[in-house]
Amino acid sequence: MQKRIAYDRTTAHEQLARLKEKPFDLTTLDEASFAKRMQQYHCSSSYFSLHYWSQLLNDEVLTALQSLADECALVGQFQEMKKGGVMNHVEGVESEKRQVLHTACRDIFVEQPCNEEATDQAVRELSKLKLFLEEIEGGQLCNGKGESFTTLIHVGIGGSDLGPHSICEALKAYSRPGRKVFFLSNVDPDDAAAVLRQVDLPRSLVAVVSKSGTTLETLTNEEMVRKALQTAGLDPREHCVSITGEGSPMDAPKRYRRSFYMYDYVGGRYSSTSMVGLVTLGFYLGYEQIIEFIEGASNMDYLCEESDIRVNQALLLALLGIWNHCYLGMPTLAVLPYSQALHRFPAHLQQLDMESNGKSIDRQAKSINDRSGPVVWGEVGTNGQHAFFQLLHQGTETVPCEFIGFRRSQYGQDMEVDGTTSQQKLIANMLAQSVALARGQDSDNPNRAFPGNRPSSVLLGERLTPGVMGALLALYEAKVVFQGFAWNINSFDQEGVQLGKVLAGRFLGEMGADKDSGDTLARFILEITGTL
Amino acid sequence: MQKRIAYDRTTAHEQLARLKEKPFDLTTLDEASFAKRMQQYHCSSSYFSLHYWSQLLNDEVLTALQSLADECALVGQFQEMKKGGVMNHVEGVESEKRQVLHTACRDIFVEQPCNEEATDQAVRELSKLKLFLEEIEGGQLCNGKGESFTTLIHVGIGGSDLGPHSICEALKAYSRPGRKVFFLSNVDPDDAAAVLRQVDLPRSLVAVVSKSGTTLETLTNEEMVRKALQTAGLDPREHCVSITGEGSPMDAPKRYRRSFYMYDYVGGRYSSTSMVGLVTLGFYLGYEQIIEFIEGASNMDYLCEESDIRVNQALLLALLGIWNHCYLGMPTLAVLPYSQALHRFPAHLQQLDMESNGKSIDRQAKSINDRSGPVVWGEVGTNGQHAFFQLLHQGTETVPCEFIGFRRSQYGQDMEVDGTTSQQKLIANMLAQSVALARGQDSDNPNRAFPGNRPSSVLLGERLTPGVMGALLALYEAKVVFQGFAWNINSFDQEGVQLGKVLAGRFLGEMGADKDSGDTLARFILEITGTL
Repeated sequence: MQKRIAYDRTTAHEQLARLKEKPFDLTTLDEASFAKRMQQYHCSSSYFSLHYWSQLLNDEVLTALQSLADECALVGQFQEMKKGGVMNHVEGVESEKRQVLHTACRDIFVEQPCNEEATDQAVRELSKLKLFLEEIEGGQLCNGKGESFTTLIHVGIGGSDLGPHSICEALKAYSRPGRKVFFLSNVDPDDAAAVLRQVDLPRSLVAVVSKSGTTLETLTNEEMVRKALQTAGLDPREHCVSITGEGSPMDAPKRYRRSFYMYDYVGGRYSSTSMVGLVTLGFYLGYEQIIEFIEGASNMDYLCEESDIRVNQALLLALLGIWNHCYLGMPTLAVLPYSQALHRFPAHLQQLDMESNGKSIDRQAKSINDRSGPVVWGEVGTNGQHAFFQLLHQGTETVPCEFIGFRRSQYGQDMEVDGTTSQQKLIANMLAQSVALARGQDSDNPNRAFPGNRPSSVLLGERLTPGVMGALLALYEAKVVFQGFAWNINSFDQEGVQLGKVLAGRFLGEMGADKDSGDTLARFILEITGTL
Repeated sequence: MQKRIAYDRTTAHEQLARLKEKPFDLTTLDEASFAKRMQQYHCSSSYFSLHYWSQLLNDEVLTALQSLADECALVGQFQEMKKGGVMNHVEGVESEKRQVLHTACRDIFVEQPCNEEATDQAVRELSKLKLFLEEIEGGQLCNGKGESFTTLIHVGIGGSDLGPHSICEALKAYSRPGRKVFFLSNVDPDDAAAVLRQVDLPRSLVAVVSKSGTTLETLTNEEMVRKALQTAGLDPREHCVSITGEGSPMDAPKRYRRSFYMYDYVGGRYSSTSMVGLVTLGFYLGYEQIIEFIEGASNMDYLCEESDIRVNQALLLALLGIWNHCYLGMPTLAVLPYSQALHRFPAHLQQLDMESNGKSIDRQAKSINDRSGPVVWGEVGTNGQHAFFQLLHQGTETVPCEFIGFRRSQYGQDMEVDGTTSQQKLIANMLAQSVALARGQDSDNPNRAFPGNRPSSVLLGERLTPGVMGALLALYEAKVVFQGFAWNINSFDQEGVQLGKVLAGRFLGEMGADKDSGDTLARFILEITGTL
């Protein structure tokens, strides 16, 4: 087992705590030095080039960050995780005590996977999925009237929703002609009503996702859909499949036409490359595309085993985040894709990052000394430019930014206006923002002055294909995991979501059939808010 | 003219600076005191009840916040704005120097509007719109084949996009049967391609929105749509209408079938109740519904003239925000609607708030001493519960939350599961979150302990109708405006978005036809990022 120490117990921490007193000043560079800096601070993988010249650092900081990574054994722990180490654990108290093997779901492209058992399970589920998709395609699996399924309604919440949803949106350009997917997650009845108004129910499959088979919101939404199917004279069992733990209440052939399994070593927010994501993505994109998708993720997982932070992009992003958050004191991180296809990806990252690293207890069950994960937020780029970028440039809060862009568009439909294409305008804007944030600008009119020194990185890919999407997903998963290791927290549990659930149950007790269950505070709150 | 002083120049500020040292502790209250507190700290208007018992305050803080509001003449300045005061101004330097009259666009329900001239202009445009909608309905305004228009493509960006877009999403349940709207904003060519793949082009109107008539992204997207129309053998002039300033390049009957005017006294992010929002909303919802919508907004504008912070909800939200941000040091604000219909509303508020108040220069062109606007972010509630709420409950960052919910659903389609309806589950969850964040919970297992004292407010409405949506929009507009007045900044300009535009132009110069325009840094960046 690799040792587990927090970043602030390393000798590198002392250096960094000293270096942060005089962070690098980007506004004093002339154009030549700025250009030199750009050459110095970028690194390339087969998927992305990462440009970090706009970060407030120099070689000394980078070297100290490398030492921090080494002293905390970040890459060693990542390898331990991939092999099946029990990383979801807090010592000395009751905890989930599980392996963390989302990487194994996609480790199917090498002779010797890092964890054979988990990869074997993944391969088995993939074969079931392949057959399922072929049967839909071939017409053997169809509705009661012998018509093919054209639509899939994905019912899940949190980790069973945001990842698959954002990836479907990102890869819409690659969807199979005539295939549609809808997502039903919120317990809001208007959400279900709006989805049900739009779908061709007789031609719809329903994929219900819950590891435990007992998630309240998901079961409620499933019931609404089943009721709608019945009302339409359809047999729900013909339409529903489940994605759940083996042996859960949802592993029930009487209720589901097919069940695909997920395992307790894959957390919800890391489950997009398990059956949680792949059943829906497979229906939407086809089997070959999802293999390309998980291959991208798997390749990135291997790239993340590199120990040099100037080569390992996920590790570098993780450490830049720690530098900005824990040393330079910036409380948030904005993720800004210059790609409409990625419009829901910041919401996925928000969940992935904040649910993983929004913790205050370390892996020895002690309070941590300083900050763990930041608030992560973001929107698609050029829209944001005309909106909240005002605060990024001239506000009193300093927000580090991660820009994501692609050199080529997905559809390849573009046109020149004023001598440049839209894709060129998109990239020009993204690069310009990064430069403007970094360099700032003086002005005689103080209202038109820009202070500069607002850090950002630019992650550039060639084109957002399924493989590149897989790599992007895995890159951010690894980044979050590396940060969790550095903060010495358990990035894989979510005890913080429990209390709200328990309290909601108490309110529902007062609202439900047996009313007045004796919780006076809940009752009082319901009365005063007029919601009883 | 009302005086303009910043909150930190008031005597109330001294009190608050002292009170913040010992903020109210919510975790020590027993259930009875907590219940008492709930009775004390809520206020009702005809649209919403606002519950703020979960804020870290007591009567002493509230009284000081009232004094702060009075000393800064927040309500007085709001009235001055409504009457036509030149509020978009920074003294002593070149600035826009304009009136701020978004409220006048909806001030059509009283005998004596606050600013007669602007309201007259609004009434004139509304009549044009009414006629336009009637002609579409009656079939006089149709496509070249005499078929009616069923679809509208709204082309705009930033303030001309997010508001109308989020409101259309919010009021989808009230849309006219068969009518569809699409939004095209991003310069990303994939965005346009995806929209154009989905629409029935021969039956589509195109509403192009740009005040100046020169917005690069909008003109580019318009060109793509016009080209698509031509390719489909259609006459673009038959399909396009413009929403623009009178006399702008887009006020051109040869190119547009109809033009609706917007005026320079309405900023983009405040323009949802001007023609910018109403043309599209009118097409989607019908004329009566948009009148109900602006009536809700107008009513709220009048409610915002109340000087008692325990009555004026927008003013109270503004001051609670200042207490949390400037005194208790919380850098962000999460807006969390428990309503799927409001799924894009946080993005609109993000723009409204951060573009308005992300400033560092006051209205006398001096650097401000402390913080102005926070980072505003958020997502729909119950989804977030299974995601980033982990950090809200147990992370090291304290995030004040504004919950928004409704007692009844929009569609009224609901069902009981386990004795309660989905709508009841929704509300129970929202209230439970607020209580959990406030009270926290001890535990022997430190990983299951909740620190509590994380402030939130709950804004509750009966049902999200067009009128309530108008009121909600105006409530937040007024909140942002009140905060800007308290910080003594100009909430109505956006100089911070300019530098990025200028730099983007330089990059495009290097990318475009005449290449090598001599900007060596831009050229170098393009080369090193492989984007030339």
